[in-house]
Amino acid sequence: MATHRLDEAAAGVYIISATPFSENGALDLDSAARLVDFYIDKGVTGITILGMMGEAPKLSPEESEKFLCAILDYTDGRVPIVVGVSHAGLGNLVSLARISMDKGAAGVMVAPTSGLGTDDKIYNYFSQVFTALGDEIPVCYQDYPYATKSETSVAVFNRLVTDFDQLVMLKHEEWPGLTKITQVRQTAEQQGIRRVSILVGNGGLYLPQELQRGVDGAMTGFAFPEMLVEVVRLHQAGEVDKAEDLFDAYLPIVRHEQQPGWGLAVRKEILHRRGVIAAPKVRAPGPVLTATDHAELTRLMNRLEKNLEEL
Amino acid sequence: MATHRLDEAAAGVYIISATPFSENGALDLDSAARLVDFYIDKGVTGITILGMMGEAPKLSPEESEKFLCAILDYTDGRVPIVVGVSHAGLGNLVSLARISMDKGAAGVMVAPTSGLGTDDKIYNYFSQVFTALGDEIPVCYQDYPYATKSETSVAVFNRLVTDFDQLVMLKHEEWPGLTKITQVRQTAEQQGIRRVSILVGNGGLYLPQELQRGVDGAMTGFAFPEMLVEVVRLHQAGEVDKAEDLFDAYLPIVRHEQQPGWGLAVRKEILHRRGVIAAPKVRAPGPVLTATDHAELTRLMNRLEKNLEEL
Amino acid sequence: MATHRLDEAAAGVYIISATPFSENGALDLDSAARLVDFYIDKGVTGITILGMMGEAPKLSPEESEKFLCAILDYTDGRVPIVVGVSHAGLGNLVSLARISMDKGAAGVMVAPTSGLGTDDKIYNYFSQVFTALGDEIPVCYQDYPYATKSETSVAVFNRLVTDFDQLVMLKHEEWPGLTKITQVRQTAEQQGIRRVSILVGNGGLYLPQELQRGVDGAMTGFAFPEMLVEVVRLHQAGEVDKAEDLFDAYLPIVRHEQQPGWGLAVRKEILHRRGVIAAPKVRAPGPVLTATDHAELTRLMNRLEKNLEEL
Amino acid sequence: MATHRLDEAAAGVYIISATPFSENGALDLDSAARLVDFYIDKGVTGITILGMMGEAPKLSPEESEKFLCAILDYTDGRVPIVVGVSHAGLGNLVSLARISMDKGAAGVMVAPTSGLGTDDKIYNYFSQVFTALGDEIPVCYQDYPYATKSETSVAVFNRLVTDFDQLVMLKHEEWPGLTKITQVRQTAEQQGIRRVSILVGNGGLYLPQELQRGVDGAMTGFAFPEMLVEVVRLHQAGEVDKAEDLFDAYLPIVRHEQQPGWGLAVRKEILHRRGVIAAPKVRAPGPVLTATDHAELTRLMNRLEKNLEEL
Repeated sequence: MATHRLDEAAAGVYIISATPFSENGALDLDSAARLVDFYIDKGVTGITILGMMGEAPKLSPEESEKFLCAILDYTDGRVPIVVGVSHAGLGNLVSLARISMDKGAAGVMVAPTSGLGTDDKIYNYFSQVFTALGDEIPVCYQDYPYATKSETSVAVFNRLVTDFDQLVMLKHEEWPGLTKITQVRQTAEQQGIRRVSILVGNGGLYLPQELQRGVDGAMTGFAFPEMLVEVVRLHQAGEVDKAEDLFDAYLPIVRHEQQPGWGLAVRKEILHRRGVIAAPKVRAPGPVLTATDHAELTRLMNRLEKNLEEL
Repeated sequence: MATHRLDEAAAGVYIISATPFSENGALDLDSAARLVDFYIDKGVTGITILGMMGEAPKLSPEESEKFLCAILDYTDGRVPIVVGVSHAGLGNLVSLARISMDKGAAGVMVAPTSGLGTDDKIYNYFSQVFTALGDEIPVCYQDYPYATKSETSVAVFNRLVTDFDQLVMLKHEEWPGLTKITQVRQTAEQQGIRRVSILVGNGGLYLPQELQRGVDGAMTGFAFPEMLVEVVRLHQAGEVDKAEDLFDAYLPIVRHEQQPGWGLAVRKEILHRRGVIAAPKVRAPGPVLTATDHAELTRLMNRLEKNLEEL
Repeated sequence: MATHRLDEAAAGVYIISATPFSENGALDLDSAARLVDFYIDKGVTGITILGMMGEAPKLSPEESEKFLCAILDYTDGRVPIVVGVSHAGLGNLVSLARISMDKGAAGVMVAPTSGLGTDDKIYNYFSQVFTALGDEIPVCYQDYPYATKSETSVAVFNRLVTDFDQLVMLKHEEWPGLTKITQVRQTAEQQGIRRVSILVGNGGLYLPQELQRGVDGAMTGFAFPEMLVEVVRLHQAGEVDKAEDLFDAYLPIVRHEQQPGWGLAVRKEILHRRGVIAAPKVRAPGPVLTATDHAELTRLMNRLEKNLEEL
Repeated sequence: MATHRLDEAAAGVYIISATPFSENGALDLDSAARLVDFYIDKGVTGITILGMMGEAPKLSPEESEKFLCAILDYTDGRVPIVVGVSHAGLGNLVSLARISMDKGAAGVMVAPTSGLGTDDKIYNYFSQVFTALGDEIPVCYQDYPYATKSETSVAVFNRLVTDFDQLVMLKHEEWPGLTKITQVRQTAEQQGIRRVSILVGNGGLYLPQELQRGVDGAMTGFAFPEMLVEVVRLHQAGEVDKAEDLFDAYLPIVRHEQQPGWGLAVRKEILHRRGVIAAPKVRAPGPVLTATDHAELTRLMNRLEKNLEEL
């Protein structure tokens, strides 16, 4: 039933979807449907669900599966869906991956488990993952050491790309990480290693620089997806300066929303103000915005409007 | 249906149960039943399941519930059962706690979420937990900073004890942590704070010293539970030296088994060799013992036998 | 000889000074003198030396003292100098503080040692520090959990402010940390706690928001100090929008330079290009910019110029 | 003047020397001289100074050099001295290493800087270190991830051994780490890599197992060095069981002293009680033993005496 399959040519914006809850904390599938329409309407290439910023670890297993099915059904093949399936147990990871693919996902995203401190530990973990998943499920490698406490060297990433064809995408969010992007591209070219897709995270904070270094797009959850889409489009069309001008107009909010943990409440509040999700609720334990935070955000959003008019 | 309820008077040995798997990785409920009989036969006061060393995070949700029900049914009130319910999402934590209590658990165990770096963060998190659980569910506080990266000061623990009656037990496994035990006991006495039960973890590595400092017993998973039981019994009977002599005979293996992560494979291998669980399997990703590791363990177990003969 | 003394009224920009080295890695005191003139010329209120971003830990003790004396002599009272004196040993901390004050420093900056995980550990550490320093040395509290792995709650900070008059300034660089600024200001006002100076770090990434929440200025090392100075001045003059407009023009570079570790090489390269320091050298082990990094920075600096023209 | 040079054949016990302070915190060189005599009298092969447990980071630079010279002068070639020279700045590391060798040290010990998360980061750091030190200074690699937050894979250690002849010794204190010892020995043998000396740390907690896996001795600071010396000697003489029997008699105190941070106060108290150092002082910030702690230690030391009589 999969009308899409993630591969090395993937480019554009795979938006990290928020997971909407009603004020009482229940999963809000109506808002989820509106979110899908909103994202597609803004021009995203794909949607990634059940990522860390999607509050996946706070869902019950039944909720995860319900949400997964609802999104895949509602999207109905309009854009590819990638599903975050990282889990402490390999069996659970595989099981969630199989369900996702059966329901029509385009691929899955896996981060290293926590605290893998050497290249061999990284390699062995992913070797187990790829073997257990089999070679039919395309995998996006989530490289996010800030959250996982596991670093991935260019050398070991290249070893994995060489040994496992199902590894087709790098979600890059090491920080600082600009140099690494260049190294992945250069070593691939110079050593004849397969070129995989690279999409960047970190809230998009360095998107213009990263595009200029050769990435294919973004995989992050910024609450103004139209900016990500247009910046990538302009860049690909060769309008590098114009892409960066547009990006810079949004940068004050990109920076504001990218504060780890707390920024999720900002992101949901923006999506709520834009009329997409019914409530800005972050599940407990999680941040709650104060009146000061609200006023600050209002000011930043007003300034954004002014920036865009002046562009 | 609960014939037991955890309270401040809890003492003795609450063994942390292993979760048995067959060689192919499937949950092995026959071995689980044998484990329950084995633990009870060795004289434990209670059993704690779904703890970190019980590989809880590697179970699927269905498996967790299945295991939970199987253990509670099979134990059938012979000893109290405590269930580890820590979870990234508060809703999931509460839901697992309710199921556990409905099925007859005596109480639940909760650790702070990861990275709570101040007293107020600890207090606020547990305040949310206790409020969400309600005051009918007795709670054991798992204080294990090595795993959670969250430290709990004596001051904030006492605040929680004062404000929440359902907090009846401290599972102490800060390391080093001898001083903290003394401080919890002394501040309770001097400030009129409610005296809670303290059971110690860390594989039991400092059990005699901890008993001498006023703890009520152990909550850990050592593969020779009869030692823990007898050491606590002798200590309570005033035979402090004899308790420590017995402990010291086992200390080489206590120390061997207490190596974080790796030690779980040792523990399961011992339980397997003792005929309790069918396979020593640790779920992937996890350690696998080599021939050298096996020979080393054999040697340590032989030396233990000699030690016990000489006692 | 101190013509300045740090106190609670401190406001404006205390620039974190780079420590210049020649290409062979030797301390470059000529460049250091040019840096002082440059900073003063750009309008800073004060200068902070031997901070973490100043590569203090890479200096030999003789070099630290030499650099300290050279800066204080050369500045000659034109602006107050704050000296970072954090050290693993309390004796060394006190000794460096005394030398600094004898040479004419306005105060010292101290961060918690690494890994203080509870409020009482923070309090006890600083209680020792303040007692050892005596009440004659004004102290700036460096709150930088990203580097120190020690968090400071508002509650414990207020306890320290209440108990130790020499604590006159908070260098705030918790991240995320906007809420904390508001809480420090609010609890001070509502509970009658002494109001201390708050200067912000984090490369200035949230400076407009932080000023709007009541901070008194910045203490960071951005390579365009004139921006920090002017933003604070405009804000204090009530021109809040104009302050933020100016800030936003620099934000792409603020963000670029604020990448931890790597950003120091960018900062020194900019200071080098601006003709202030002879070499952009970061001492080993440390980052080295590639040709790609250089071209990227050139582009960002050119865009900044355009932004400023359009302002 | 060096009468010794560390090389791959090094074996036995290199005791990690405490750094003695008088009650007021001053460096106590008389006690240091008594320590040297005590260690040599107990049969150690060598002495390691300025290690992490030697409170090196709490010394002022002048004190470090003074202590270094005093120990080397007083020892006067009776046993080889290894000097811990780890430092955040490469220049300082090299400078301390040169002073040490000039004064007659047998070699230096270097740990990775903090947070090197990939094999290449480890390799590049040590490549810089070895190049800067030159090939005339023998180096012991301190592998202590608990303190450094940097893991060293067997693969990268072997790369370093292959590329740098001055790397002659591994101080092994990864935990858990038994498997790693076996892997280093096996890969060396199977791949023809140079065999280096391995001495173990971790307070000696697994010394018998580690000797059985092929290490050459211990480098740790246990307050009863005679046990370490005799266990290694018996093991080398083929009396493996007798070695382990002796070790087990001391194990309760080995375990007690090995508690990180706190254990240093225990170690110094024992050395004080044994009449070696004048005061058990640990420099601030550091642990102070309470009356309860003292009584507990007395009990453990009395039990040790009984154990030894019964042996």
